[in-house]
Amino acid sequence: MGLGVAMLTLAAATVGGAEKPALMPWPAAVEMGQGELALGPGFRVAVSGRGGAIVAEAARRLEARLARQTGLVLPPLGPVTGKPQLEIRCDGPGKGTLPYLGMDESYTLTVTPEGATLQAPEPWGILRGIETFLQLVTPGASTDFRVPAVVVKDAPRFPWRGLHLDVSRHWMPVETVKRTLDGMAAVKLNVLHWHLTDDQGFRVESRQYPALHRMGSDGHFYTQEQVKDVIAYAALRGIRVMPEFDLPGHTTSWFVGHPELATMPGPYSVARRFGVLDAAMDPTKEEVYRLLDGFLGEMAALFPDAFLHIGGDEVNGKHWNASERVAAFKKQKGFPTNRELHTYFNQRLSKIVRGHGKQMMGWDEILDGGLPKDTVVQSWRGQESLGAAAKQGFRGVLSFGYYLDLMWPAARHYAVDPLDKGVDQLPAADLARVLGGEACMWSEYATPETVDSRVWPRAAAIAERLWSPREVTDVTDMYARLDAVSRQLEWLGLDHRAGYPRMLQRLAGRQLEGLRGLADVVEPVKDYEREGTGEYTSETPLNRLVDAARAESDEARVFAGMVDALLADPSRQAGRDALRARLTEWQDLDVRLRPLLEQRAILREAVPLAGQASALARAALEALAFLEQGQAAPESWWKERAPLLEAPKNPPSALEVGFLPAVKKLMTAARGKGAME
Amino acid sequence: MGLGVAMLTLAAATVGGAEKPALMPWPAAVEMGQGELALGPGFRVAVSGRGGAIVAEAARRLEARLARQTGLVLPPLGPVTGKPQLEIRCDGPGKGTLPYLGMDESYTLTVTPEGATLQAPEPWGILRGIETFLQLVTPGASTDFRVPAVVVKDAPRFPWRGLHLDVSRHWMPVETVKRTLDGMAAVKLNVLHWHLTDDQGFRVESRQYPALHRMGSDGHFYTQEQVKDVIAYAALRGIRVMPEFDLPGHTTSWFVGHPELATMPGPYSVARRFGVLDAAMDPTKEEVYRLLDGFLGEMAALFPDAFLHIGGDEVNGKHWNASERVAAFKKQKGFPTNRELHTYFNQRLSKIVRGHGKQMMGWDEILDGGLPKDTVVQSWRGQESLGAAAKQGFRGVLSFGYYLDLMWPAARHYAVDPLDKGVDQLPAADLARVLGGEACMWSEYATPETVDSRVWPRAAAIAERLWSPREVTDVTDMYARLDAVSRQLEWLGLDHRAGYPRMLQRLAGRQLEGLRGLADVVEPVKDYEREGTGEYTSETPLNRLVDAARAESDEARVFAGMVDALLADPSRQAGRDALRARLTEWQDLDVRLRPLLEQRAILREAVPLAGQASALARAALEALAFLEQGQAAPESWWKERAPLLEAPKNPPSALEVGFLPAVKKLMTAARGKGAME
Repeated sequence: MGLGVAMLTLAAATVGGAEKPALMPWPAAVEMGQGELALGPGFRVAVSGRGGAIVAEAARRLEARLARQTGLVLPPLGPVTGKPQLEIRCDGPGKGTLPYLGMDESYTLTVTPEGATLQAPEPWGILRGIETFLQLVTPGASTDFRVPAVVVKDAPRFPWRGLHLDVSRHWMPVETVKRTLDGMAAVKLNVLHWHLTDDQGFRVESRQYPALHRMGSDGHFYTQEQVKDVIAYAALRGIRVMPEFDLPGHTTSWFVGHPELATMPGPYSVARRFGVLDAAMDPTKEEVYRLLDGFLGEMAALFPDAFLHIGGDEVNGKHWNASERVAAFKKQKGFPTNRELHTYFNQRLSKIVRGHGKQMMGWDEILDGGLPKDTVVQSWRGQESLGAAAKQGFRGVLSFGYYLDLMWPAARHYAVDPLDKGVDQLPAADLARVLGGEACMWSEYATPETVDSRVWPRAAAIAERLWSPREVTDVTDMYARLDAVSRQLEWLGLDHRAGYPRMLQRLAGRQLEGLRGLADVVEPVKDYEREGTGEYTSETPLNRLVDAARAESDEARVFAGMVDALLADPSRQAGRDALRARLTEWQDLDVRLRPLLEQRAILREAVPLAGQASALARAALEALAFLEQGQAAPESWWKERAPLLEAPKNPPSALEVGFLPAVKKLMTAARGKGAME
Repeated sequence: MGLGVAMLTLAAATVGGAEKPALMPWPAAVEMGQGELALGPGFRVAVSGRGGAIVAEAARRLEARLARQTGLVLPPLGPVTGKPQLEIRCDGPGKGTLPYLGMDESYTLTVTPEGATLQAPEPWGILRGIETFLQLVTPGASTDFRVPAVVVKDAPRFPWRGLHLDVSRHWMPVETVKRTLDGMAAVKLNVLHWHLTDDQGFRVESRQYPALHRMGSDGHFYTQEQVKDVIAYAALRGIRVMPEFDLPGHTTSWFVGHPELATMPGPYSVARRFGVLDAAMDPTKEEVYRLLDGFLGEMAALFPDAFLHIGGDEVNGKHWNASERVAAFKKQKGFPTNRELHTYFNQRLSKIVRGHGKQMMGWDEILDGGLPKDTVVQSWRGQESLGAAAKQGFRGVLSFGYYLDLMWPAARHYAVDPLDKGVDQLPAADLARVLGGEACMWSEYATPETVDSRVWPRAAAIAERLWSPREVTDVTDMYARLDAVSRQLEWLGLDHRAGYPRMLQRLAGRQLEGLRGLADVVEPVKDYEREGTGEYTSETPLNRLVDAARAESDEARVFAGMVDALLADPSRQAGRDALRARLTEWQDLDVRLRPLLEQRAILREAVPLAGQASALARAALEALAFLEQGQAAPESWWKERAPLLEAPKNPPSALEVGFLPAVKKLMTAARGKGAME
């Protein structure tokens, strides 16, 4: 590292006066240089080394994206005369053309005012480095587009950085999957975990057992050609595709065409309800294993990845308990509970999966015993579970804390580290078995129209957690970069920003702006609360205000920061006028919106929400006034206003006011003011 | 028709006080009733009659769209208990499951407060009527969603209502084609004319001659499976799919893999330049006809439509003139000019096309002689050409006046009628040969990202011209309905509205609103002027302000209406303050935007444009002041300001100020004020 340059591994807004680049995930090492590389009309990309088709294709995509981002017309790739401004040099071909667990994703990107070099030992690193380069391209302060002088030496912290996509509960067509892959590549995620079967739909063509997809999918399934197309598309982006076939529970859709696999006699129909259903495969029947052997063999040939996920979660045991056949089998085998029966099933399944040359993966539940050590555990239970598995010799991947469908703010996901809860104290050999993590997108409440806004931009924060050094944890800095990355993601065709006004427009007609004022400050209820707000099935339209609303309100987050700044300032002056302006606007929401909300059946459920938002804003204005006067608010005021701070249970809108916690802080401070002085 | 209800065949803003429904195309007969049908949670759709799979599928799509539009959860289609609120009754199965020229598209839709009935003799009419029903669904004035009581008796004026889509000059993937089909169905267009081959790309897989698509497409072509998928998708929407293979000119892409077909020796590469290129097939070679026979036979089997378009336009003859072989052939055959040679080629081609059971279609040029009377002419020359063809016994379709890529305002397309210029004076038998028209989308300046905004919403105005009674011509009324339809189209997944802020955002970063102020009042230059503003090839990124800008500025149109109102008012008061406010805002554009425009290389070309817009607004404010004072503006003022009214030739931005014509009116009025009094 040279003198006079700043070494950035931790967050800082500026580096020696230079603006910090909006890189996400933040690289392992960033060293800012002096000056910048101008991207002018003569800009050229040249490829050398042994990267093969993956790098050649990546360079072509780079040129297309650069053209779109900057308007620069680059000549077709070819022999370069004169010095190229970006030289891509891949030292080796890597092992084959398919990404794999443990592939070398490291790269070095060097930018000087004279030119840039991207070097990597394998094609995968080139792919990652290209994304970094594109994130560095910004309009220059004075002229043209430019890339700041910088040396980036980068490699991921974890080798397994996935996104789990449920395409069963709501069907997601190929184009949705592809644009998801584009977004994943942009933030350096490297595993698409494709949840292909569940109670609500069997989403992949089986040529050996066509009744599975024909009768279990309502016509919505991927043909094998489409699967191959997706795998090839992902491979070019350095993303593995691992299929999941959830077994032996979550299998209602299998039984529509093959009722003989089920524990209880049919007929079955594709499930519309969500949750843990009773249907389960009958682990006592040899024909179950015969079909699974045939089907998984077919899938093992279709999906080249070394891993195959068999789910294994949430068997409630009701059908097993109700079956005399199962009872007799348990007695014969000496299984005291269903747990042993499930273990027996998993062991048989594990042999089948291994027989087809794959390593098996499953959710926490599969760990219950007797599985070979190459099994991988995906933990929804937590880091402790992951650590326990590692100690037993199993590799594991964390999903606890990364469920995007729970509508948590990015910061909350960002704070979850696979090595928390003492996992980092494990011996190195055990620690190496913690492979990384996966963001999970369960699709009970997501459709192709809304899924982008449920995944993005928050998945980028999880991607950073899994790629970047553990010390990169500054939340303010993360949000600033997340905002920039969110805009860039949209240039790839993701719809998470454009879909928002479009859906609001549909709800509000021409009175979009008014409704937007409310939508901007509300958030869908968190965790599994939405279940309690109405009757949902896979056929319920997801076209309401809650579906348009973003998982996280930027406005509320910024407001919370303003409140914190005010309360931290003893003079109670910091940003007071801006706060008051904001609150005054929100105080008017109810009056401004009531006519629209009452007029439209689909919006009527939001009437109480607008009322609550206005009342909270009013109370906050009062709190502000008390704080200004420097005297504690009377207890009678507190008693009157405090009920506002209790978010209603199961609100019909399934929305909550995003700025409630900040208002609570203000009100609490106003109440305590006297006592504190 | 009952008493006390209004019969609407002509435009009127309200009907007996009821708001006029935003139907487009406007039906043949609309009779408004009293009251409305409320769409509540119990709403049911029932299908009866003999419509088969087309109607069943259409009803499913209707339910999904209704759910999205209203939030109503409809139970799955099935036996209905109780009275359905919408009864769909198809009297006959029609001829087969593929749409065809002359299919019966008529329907009757009756809505009363008690329920609605959609009846049609064939499935095609049901499809059209469902679109009408969906356009009638609006949020009620007081509660819920509703459909006004109405009787619609509808049938198209012309049987051929097409959209020509060029996928050669810029590739359009299947999803772009499908969403275009969704839009077409929504406005009752019924022919997708798929321009599959041209100099810049050969876009369809040929299994017999794979070198055609493999070498002529840069990898961008439709597989035959994809073609079948598109045809099936279109058929379910009552849309025919007619392929075009442009011959013998516009064929450079054929020659990359088959140089032996060309007049001049190769090698050839896929063309990047646009315009009329010199390459042409050699009409003297028997192997040309052998390959065409094989290839068109393959395509005739792939595309079930009765028509096959062979292009036939724009052969400049340069290569024919340069070939000794062609010269010898012409001499031997006694062809004095290339025209006879082209006719010879068309006659041979016609036999091949007929041999494969298809009727041939081509552009005006093919009419030059000796073709069978079942040939159809597509006229880019005008109604006279169409009329002449009809007199000779040829059927014809008008595209003159319907070129969407020329960036005309909707009103200008709307004013073009296939029966203008005396065609309506033809005897009935000849007149019946005028089949309709086709909007044309040539894609030199359109990509998958921008094509929606080039086609929509203006294509809806052309669709109305071809469907609705000839007397439906009120432009103000058309625009009001077009605006509503434009919003509805977006719910189908079309991107013509959402793409606009997204592209502006990419150009402007966070300073979106400022740039939008300019973008809202400018329009791409018209006709073929863009060619003169820069060097364009198929590789030029279309990511500039001109690509984001809408073909027609709504703001400028509304402003022009305000100016007309002011000038029509002798007191010069009508809307004066609003006019002044608008102009003051525009006057500031230059100052407000200059820093952003100069900072970004990609926006710098718009600096003169912003300057011109501001200067025009300033001059208009001065004109307003003169008009208010009631005295003519001095001639010196006019002389100084008049140059502003000359739009610059070949502006680098390829944009023009949309409100210039209205400013010209104001300034002219100010100058003439004294003289007039």
